[in-house]
Amino acid sequence: MSDRDRIPRDPSADYTREMAEKRAEFLREKSGATLKHVQGYSFDPGLLPGNIENFTGVAQVPIGIAGPLRVNGEFAQGDFYVPLATTEGTLVASYNRGMRVLAESGGVTATVVKRSMQRAPVFMFETARQARDFGEWVTQNHDLIRAAAESTTRSGRLIEIEQYALANMLHLRFNYTTGDAAGQNMTGKATWAACEWIRETHPAHPKYMLSGSLDTDKKHSAINTLRTRGRRVVAEAVIRRDVLQRLMRVDTATLFRARQVSNAGALLAGSAYNGPHAANGIAAMFIACGQDVANVAESHAGITYAQLLENGDYYWSITLPSLIVASYGGGTGLPTQRECLEMIGCYGTGKADKFAEIVAAVVLAGDISLGSAVLADEWVTSHERMGRNRP
Amino acid sequence: MSDRDRIPRDPSADYTREMAEKRAEFLREKSGATLKHVQGYSFDPGLLPGNIENFTGVAQVPIGIAGPLRVNGEFAQGDFYVPLATTEGTLVASYNRGMRVLAESGGVTATVVKRSMQRAPVFMFETARQARDFGEWVTQNHDLIRAAAESTTRSGRLIEIEQYALANMLHLRFNYTTGDAAGQNMTGKATWAACEWIRETHPAHPKYMLSGSLDTDKKHSAINTLRTRGRRVVAEAVIRRDVLQRLMRVDTATLFRARQVSNAGALLAGSAYNGPHAANGIAAMFIACGQDVANVAESHAGITYAQLLENGDYYWSITLPSLIVASYGGGTGLPTQRECLEMIGCYGTGKADKFAEIVAAVVLAGDISLGSAVLADEWVTSHERMGRNRP
Amino acid sequence: MSDRDRIPRDPSADYTREMAEKRAEFLREKSGATLKHVQGYSFDPGLLPGNIENFTGVAQVPIGIAGPLRVNGEFAQGDFYVPLATTEGTLVASYNRGMRVLAESGGVTATVVKRSMQRAPVFMFETARQARDFGEWVTQNHDLIRAAAESTTRSGRLIEIEQYALANMLHLRFNYTTGDAAGQNMTGKATWAACEWIRETHPAHPKYMLSGSLDTDKKHSAINTLRTRGRRVVAEAVIRRDVLQRLMRVDTATLFRARQVSNAGALLAGSAYNGPHAANGIAAMFIACGQDVANVAESHAGITYAQLLENGDYYWSITLPSLIVASYGGGTGLPTQRECLEMIGCYGTGKADKFAEIVAAVVLAGDISLGSAVLADEWVTSHERMGRNRP
Amino acid sequence: MSDRDRIPRDPSADYTREMAEKRAEFLREKSGATLKHVQGYSFDPGLLPGNIENFTGVAQVPIGIAGPLRVNGEFAQGDFYVPLATTEGTLVASYNRGMRVLAESGGVTATVVKRSMQRAPVFMFETARQARDFGEWVTQNHDLIRAAAESTTRSGRLIEIEQYALANMLHLRFNYTTGDAAGQNMTGKATWAACEWIRETHPAHPKYMLSGSLDTDKKHSAINTLRTRGRRVVAEAVIRRDVLQRLMRVDTATLFRARQVSNAGALLAGSAYNGPHAANGIAAMFIACGQDVANVAESHAGITYAQLLENGDYYWSITLPSLIVASYGGGTGLPTQRECLEMIGCYGTGKADKFAEIVAAVVLAGDISLGSAVLADEWVTSHERMGRNRP
Repeated sequence: MSDRDRIPRDPSADYTREMAEKRAEFLREKSGATLKHVQGYSFDPGLLPGNIENFTGVAQVPIGIAGPLRVNGEFAQGDFYVPLATTEGTLVASYNRGMRVLAESGGVTATVVKRSMQRAPVFMFETARQARDFGEWVTQNHDLIRAAAESTTRSGRLIEIEQYALANMLHLRFNYTTGDAAGQNMTGKATWAACEWIRETHPAHPKYMLSGSLDTDKKHSAINTLRTRGRRVVAEAVIRRDVLQRLMRVDTATLFRARQVSNAGALLAGSAYNGPHAANGIAAMFIACGQDVANVAESHAGITYAQLLENGDYYWSITLPSLIVASYGGGTGLPTQRECLEMIGCYGTGKADKFAEIVAAVVLAGDISLGSAVLADEWVTSHERMGRNRP
Repeated sequence: MSDRDRIPRDPSADYTREMAEKRAEFLREKSGATLKHVQGYSFDPGLLPGNIENFTGVAQVPIGIAGPLRVNGEFAQGDFYVPLATTEGTLVASYNRGMRVLAESGGVTATVVKRSMQRAPVFMFETARQARDFGEWVTQNHDLIRAAAESTTRSGRLIEIEQYALANMLHLRFNYTTGDAAGQNMTGKATWAACEWIRETHPAHPKYMLSGSLDTDKKHSAINTLRTRGRRVVAEAVIRRDVLQRLMRVDTATLFRARQVSNAGALLAGSAYNGPHAANGIAAMFIACGQDVANVAESHAGITYAQLLENGDYYWSITLPSLIVASYGGGTGLPTQRECLEMIGCYGTGKADKFAEIVAAVVLAGDISLGSAVLADEWVTSHERMGRNRP
Repeated sequence: MSDRDRIPRDPSADYTREMAEKRAEFLREKSGATLKHVQGYSFDPGLLPGNIENFTGVAQVPIGIAGPLRVNGEFAQGDFYVPLATTEGTLVASYNRGMRVLAESGGVTATVVKRSMQRAPVFMFETARQARDFGEWVTQNHDLIRAAAESTTRSGRLIEIEQYALANMLHLRFNYTTGDAAGQNMTGKATWAACEWIRETHPAHPKYMLSGSLDTDKKHSAINTLRTRGRRVVAEAVIRRDVLQRLMRVDTATLFRARQVSNAGALLAGSAYNGPHAANGIAAMFIACGQDVANVAESHAGITYAQLLENGDYYWSITLPSLIVASYGGGTGLPTQRECLEMIGCYGTGKADKFAEIVAAVVLAGDISLGSAVLADEWVTSHERMGRNRP
Repeated sequence: MSDRDRIPRDPSADYTREMAEKRAEFLREKSGATLKHVQGYSFDPGLLPGNIENFTGVAQVPIGIAGPLRVNGEFAQGDFYVPLATTEGTLVASYNRGMRVLAESGGVTATVVKRSMQRAPVFMFETARQARDFGEWVTQNHDLIRAAAESTTRSGRLIEIEQYALANMLHLRFNYTTGDAAGQNMTGKATWAACEWIRETHPAHPKYMLSGSLDTDKKHSAINTLRTRGRRVVAEAVIRRDVLQRLMRVDTATLFRARQVSNAGALLAGSAYNGPHAANGIAAMFIACGQDVANVAESHAGITYAQLLENGDYYWSITLPSLIVASYGGGTGLPTQRECLEMIGCYGTGKADKFAEIVAAVVLAGDISLGSAVLADEWVTSHERMGRNRP
């Protein structure tokens, strides 16, 4: 690679407007792009070490707000106005409409039911029998392994080591609580320390890989849905029949019939989610609030469960088994990201659970809105046309 | 809801700095957030109708650049400097390193092997037999149905109607090419027109829902992986053994042994992707380039396939079966988003395939980097320690 | 291996009572087993070439009968008494009970909605682009490929060649109708001929493997559930509320509430079937009727879809997307197997569809019985206890 | 239903030749079937209560034997001759061939790495929060719950209660060891007792269903593959390169290249097993040995994991995560079934692990045989033709 193809860098002062501009100039020469707005950022690049390399500017993603979203959480209580960063028209309006249905039905009950972040190394042996026996050794030495892991972190706690035997290997899925951080790095570091301790201590000094692909970081998986990754959160509400009829022009009985179709369709499709569109609300909140947006891969999965009540009201719940959020660390402290977290009172320590509750409530709002609209448009419109065509 | 809880709006002039400020002020009062940087955008809100509602400001997501990425595509040819919008430290540096391995190995061959966007209505009958016979009617009337669908769009082409029988229903999965748009709206509108035509024309005037959950919009699914959603793209390269050893300190034979472990782990976990982290590169490019970021849900899925060649070089491919991209429409025309697309020569009509090729090449670069680093750190480090401990 | 460890064989007269006895004697010496009943078979071993090697005797699996099962099929019409070969107590009684519910509700409507058996070779190239272009060649040469395939078979018809691109390969999933045979061998032979024709004719003379694992023979898979393997059959019935209450002591509304729980549970579990126990009836009929019992792996998968009707009756359907059956070939002509097929009028040519309808109807009967019993036992019993404990 | 349509029964003496004949006569009248061989059974029907209802005769399924199978198990040690009941030609011969490859390579190492049978009730609450708190109560009361469960059984031991939160419910997956019985009934009874204890003791007296569909009885599922159902068994062997070449005409390097294709294909297909055909051997042994054949649904799933060793030998392992077997109870005590178990020294108490090891070893033998044959036939044959065509 010739020097003129090398991206300009200055190790001694790389996080400056000057270097960003120098890189932009480099890119302009290479591509002809103007890079005017990319350079239209409002903060000092000196904030960015640990968040980005080769900083050249910003993506300006429009933020719309929706609300009030009424949440009856354990951490989030009251009405919230939610920032959604997206470029997809109608998204904010649609979520807003669902929030109104929820507010008029008494709000969303949101609950974090499990917290667990993983790193899952695999230990390799000559035979399955050795791998299995190693598993017993791990169980017996659990306290020492935990001590080795926790020696590397102040906020991480090792809560469980799952064992999955496969061929002549044993996968160990280390589960941690990670406080208000998402925790992928923390758990990686802690697990590495534990693995090194194991390797040095166990008589066979077993070989290992720090990930045997059972942690499924940045990937949807069946194991995430079953066993939780990040936070397992439930948002649930009893939608009042009259409210849904008035605001969305759909009857709850119609909605429930359609739910049967959707459940069967989701089973047939092998779908990671059987509701309308969790990913939309999650992505929009993640971008606004400085989350790791790649975690949409894991976080969008879930299960919609509904029951039509005897009075015609509609119990609607969504369970998000692998919602990965942080109120601290990562991108949460960057300027606009922090402001968005502050908008919902979720910045800093002690706020990740609150944030998780709000995200789940947002997802429910969006599903109510889209799930109802589809039926109203189709079936009502259909009905009208049908009537028009058949005098 | 009292007036003082209502988000300020002005239907006659809502996309203005004034209204954005008014909403920001409303939020400040409600939450105490400062919203200074959120308001630090560099463009006229008048650009935003069709992209956002209740506009209040922007998320400023840092962009780093990586490259040169050498792509031997059918549309993307040459060296590219790629914008990655993220708040996760080391991401840009890691992708950059993978790009160097690729460049020194001759670059990435990237190919779009299929294009197909869907809307999948379900038609409901009294019995399975009626549903099945309806399927024959659909086959016989394919040309008329296609005409009804295509009457609504200039760039969309209906290429196939798949049929999936389930209970007393028939799911029809309408497949379109959608030019340079992602096409979810286009296919929705076209399919609705086709469904209405069907309902009016078929003697039973069958009831339908516009989605029976087989289109799995904004969701990972088995059907996406099998049948394609958006673009099916393959990026492949032959990594030179000496290059990998020099740059990543890993031998290709080690890499290949680890691939076996990862494949087995992915099968065990029920993972949507058996490589390291497609979602990272995809999310970072999607944010930068004005894509619908919620589509990370579908787009991150895929299959890594590798072979160790007889000379020790390493064939590494990734297949992304549901990569959803656009070079036109959606957020692609917004100021920073357009600039980022221009940076890689992918803005506007005729550029979606090129963009897809580059995204796939980026994913391969990231997987090489992380996949190798994990092994280098662990096994080499382990080896050194092992040596140290055993005199 | 020493001669005394070699299983006795006589190539010139191996299918005789004498050789079976010689092998039994060999086994007695090796293991001490008596092998008295294993030798208690009622037919001439001379019937067995093509069905078994090293014949030594038979497993005698008890057959119970259940019925009448009222089927409103296109091929099966009327009341049937069904042979179930099993060693699991209560299975026959349970299916019998479900059949009574069905009969009193008007019977089962059963419909074969698709027929398709596969062999799925994979063709290998240097690059994905070559593989994709090969796919176009296959499309253009479809008629010639079909001719090559069909030259090997009288009853098989090639109805579709699906294409699945993966890395530098193209999987071709050849779909056939196979008349009354299950068709795995027929499709293998035909596809091999087609592949050889392709390899010889295509300019690149591409390398291939006859199975790239997309036919998923003897394995459950998502592709089977989506695309069909064998026969896709729906059994459906409207269960009368009063009948269910009287015979099963369960209300349809209770059943429907429980269905929601089961659907969510099946999604969470990643289950191949969301009903109670299709495999039981299928295995029992397959053993009795000379089917390939390993195909329980594919055949047990499916989707239960139900709706509670406004009058309180209950629409219950099961869709079996990969039911693999034969009325001809394989084990269907063996003595007891043929008698069992004759018991339901399903032996010989032109009967496979009828048999498929009956199997699906049996599955529905079993699911109604177990699905209701579970609720009746638990909730009623619970209720009584609850009452007893709380005066 | 008229009397003449009712299957004849005699509650006081139903398990007799007379009643079997009476039912056969009834069937002959209804269907015209002869039912001669079905009646050709060699034992007293008085043995059958608990195994069948409405007994009418037997299916005579041919048994072939294969061996010697050399097993280095913890329970099965030495050479075994294995009974395979099937009607599919070449199956026995194929397994036999694989056993020879294994024997000449030093045999199969088989290991039971986990034992766990389940019943998974679901408890229902008004909100997710109540369900979650109930989970803590369950943890605190674990010993008492275990006592309630174990009070119903002598051989069953409750080893773990997994918790899966979903909506306003908590699924409890009760895990037991069940000795030499498959244990579905035992675990059902024990779990029912535990649930009743919970319902009576917990202040909310929560409603429950005995199965919330997470036990996935008689169904393949992701949860089975991950968490084990029945026995998790690994069979592994190092296949010698020269042996494979000599007996199967395939090079291990070719086999390994094909393994990459199969792994990718299995991931694409969403396949329950990534090897050739576990179901064949399992079904044939299950029929012969009195297992619950419907459990082929669960038992056929698994993961093949291989590595090509530096000396060219081939490490081949299969992991069967949900192999459900018994050496006691169910059909194991019936005449031919017991004889077949005795043939491999697996009848009665203390033999289930041995039987599991043998089944897994059989599966490995069959996969080696078919997996190699496919390659030999195709690639060698292809090569010859290719040579013939091109002078």
